[in-house]
Amino acid sequence: MNRTNQLVQRFLAHRNVTVELVNKIEKEHYNYKPTPTSMTAKDLVTHILFSFYRFAKVAKSGNSAVFSEKIEETETDLRKVTETYTEKTKSLLESLTDEELDRVLDLTQRFGMKIPAFQLLQLALDHEIHHKGQLFVYVREMGHTELPFFIKRG
Amino acid sequence: MNRTNQLVQRFLAHRNVTVELVNKIEKEHYNYKPTPTSMTAKDLVTHILFSFYRFAKVAKSGNSAVFSEKIEETETDLRKVTETYTEKTKSLLESLTDEELDRVLDLTQRFGMKIPAFQLLQLALDHEIHHKGQLFVYVREMGHTELPFFIKRG
Repeated sequence: MNRTNQLVQRFLAHRNVTVELVNKIEKEHYNYKPTPTSMTAKDLVTHILFSFYRFAKVAKSGNSAVFSEKIEETETDLRKVTETYTEKTKSLLESLTDEELDRVLDLTQRFGMKIPAFQLLQLALDHEIHHKGQLFVYVREMGHTELPFFIKRG
Repeated sequence: MNRTNQLVQRFLAHRNVTVELVNKIEKEHYNYKPTPTSMTAKDLVTHILFSFYRFAKVAKSGNSAVFSEKIEETETDLRKVTETYTEKTKSLLESLTDEELDRVLDLTQRFGMKIPAFQLLQLALDHEIHHKGQLFVYVREMGHTELPFFIKRG
């Protein structure tokens, strides 16, 4: 399996679990937050989705200005938004060449460092796993007790 | 930087954040849990610590029976337990050779697959990040609003 395929597999192994959790969130819980300073469930989910999409777009384009691009999303059904951004992110990841994975990105302004794209995508994975972990607590607090394993191999 | 050093750096980038969170948990919150079916804060922290230690021991020894070893720990101060197991795990990871990282481990009984040790350690990192994400929610629910970033580069 080449590096791009491995990356896509690792992405899906976690994203498919994020999708399962989102499928458990009913509309009346979109604004649920565990404490007054927490993100709402809706904000947490869109943060997960938009972040990975942006990380993948920066890796593909080599242009860190993408991080500042505002994403306008009019769809209000979280399940549909999740489906759309999972597909868009997967397509971007699948298209990455070895040259693009090895390209060093200047992220000095944002993260104070220059790193190759494949390391940025490792950070993207860590970011997804971190926030998905939080989402597990949210979904349990919404009353669900049957939750998936944290990773799902294809 | 060689693979072992990269691995140790990635371990510490997340473990150092786990340590910061543990340092915020007072004894009266050790038995806190967000819902009746959740792990307590104490169980979540020791699960994080013991799991990575076991993953590292399996990688080092090549023996998957280590997963079933019971860890007897008499220390009750979570900060001290965290310090001890972080040190033990770090030492194990630092000692790993390229041969040991590439050794294929038979984890058919436990995870239904045979994988090289370096992939098992990737799973160990994912596991730490997942549960640390949950710990962030717990600690915020204990009343803390000043929380670290989810990853801390050395």
